[in-house]
Amino acid sequence: MAIMLYELAAAKPEIRFSPYCWRTRFALAHKGLPAQTLPWRFTETERIAFSGQGRVPVLVDDATVVADSWEIALYLERRYPDRPSLFGGSGGIAHALFVNAWADTTLQPGISRLIVADIWQALRPEDQPYFRQSREAAFRRPLEEVVAGREERVVEWRRTLAPLRTVLQRQPWLGGAAPDYADFIVLGSLQWPRCISPFPLLEDDDPVRAWRDRGYALFDGLGASAPTV
Amino acid sequence: MAIMLYELAAAKPEIRFSPYCWRTRFALAHKGLPAQTLPWRFTETERIAFSGQGRVPVLVDDATVVADSWEIALYLERRYPDRPSLFGGSGGIAHALFVNAWADTTLQPGISRLIVADIWQALRPEDQPYFRQSREAAFRRPLEEVVAGREERVVEWRRTLAPLRTVLQRQPWLGGAAPDYADFIVLGSLQWPRCISPFPLLEDDDPVRAWRDRGYALFDGLGASAPTV
Repeated sequence: MAIMLYELAAAKPEIRFSPYCWRTRFALAHKGLPAQTLPWRFTETERIAFSGQGRVPVLVDDATVVADSWEIALYLERRYPDRPSLFGGSGGIAHALFVNAWADTTLQPGISRLIVADIWQALRPEDQPYFRQSREAAFRRPLEEVVAGREERVVEWRRTLAPLRTVLQRQPWLGGAAPDYADFIVLGSLQWPRCISPFPLLEDDDPVRAWRDRGYALFDGLGASAPTV
Repeated sequence: MAIMLYELAAAKPEIRFSPYCWRTRFALAHKGLPAQTLPWRFTETERIAFSGQGRVPVLVDDATVVADSWEIALYLERRYPDRPSLFGGSGGIAHALFVNAWADTTLQPGISRLIVADIWQALRPEDQPYFRQSREAAFRRPLEEVVAGREERVVEWRRTLAPLRTVLQRQPWLGGAAPDYADFIVLGSLQWPRCISPFPLLEDDDPVRAWRDRGYALFDGLGASAPTV
């Protein structure tokens, strides 16, 4: 049986925008594992209740169910050791966790403050109240206020990408000479705004932009061909 | 012949405060390589001219001269492959470069804005003009203005440590189950303010503080026993 992957979808089911689901999508492609991807919406908690929790990605591989993108990457590396490595050894796993943590705690909160109102806009009407309430509770203000002034604030956000630029001066991928899961983590984070928001984050001449575009060209253009709003 | 390491020193030669030199010091200890450390000051460019550049750390291992902490770590890993690994494989090297870049572009600039005037204070009189002029040119204001308000600003700086806290929730070291060069990078960054400034950066109950103290206890207390101002 093919692997199944539950992915966060917008109102248009072909728009898949979760940074975490994209990390898994790239990881599966890197391992050469075909998967059936199933659209899932924020309020469909019962549809993934079998996973024992309420978030996507959820991966189903025969009898094995794994939730959480990091856990899924570890699972794929362990379960399919003869396919291309996602991490390049034990040190690669340990250190990729830092890249994962940086993306989750630094990169993505900054992106959220630039595009969160666009996400609300792209959801099904029945999913919008949950999203607005939960996010406005976290931000303590209306989503429209959160994104206000983003044309100016995006300049400051671009500065948080400095570690990426420094690495890319020395090597073509975060994984070194070839892409690996460290790349897929950050490519996933950047695929999120790209798919769900019309607001452009990266300048054309940013080396991060060039790296991102090379990343989205991988696997026959898996990232580049993703439907966007 | 023993390895020799040129290290940045304050007016008191026993105070070694460069984050980069500390990375190398920890790396040498991890490899179990004894080294003779030589104090070096900012204005002594002629003393390390043999390295073809003007900064420390400079490592001299028999006929081999290596400058730059990252290059030194790569050299030690390559030259002493039978001793404990600094990186845990090729992926570990590639991904540690991201940790290195984060420390250099995010962590340390934030620390600098909190302690740079203390550094000036701790230097020899003959090194102070160079330091003040070069740093004030970079900051475009007096060093005393740069550090003003640090009691309040340190709270914001602590937030930049979020990726570290997230990693340390899952594993005891950045290197995973045991410390490696990823730890030494950040331990080096934090040893810098600890040795050269009386201003405390970390709160007592911060998990980063507990990890740092475990790190400074390694190698018979190499970090913990370092002379401070």
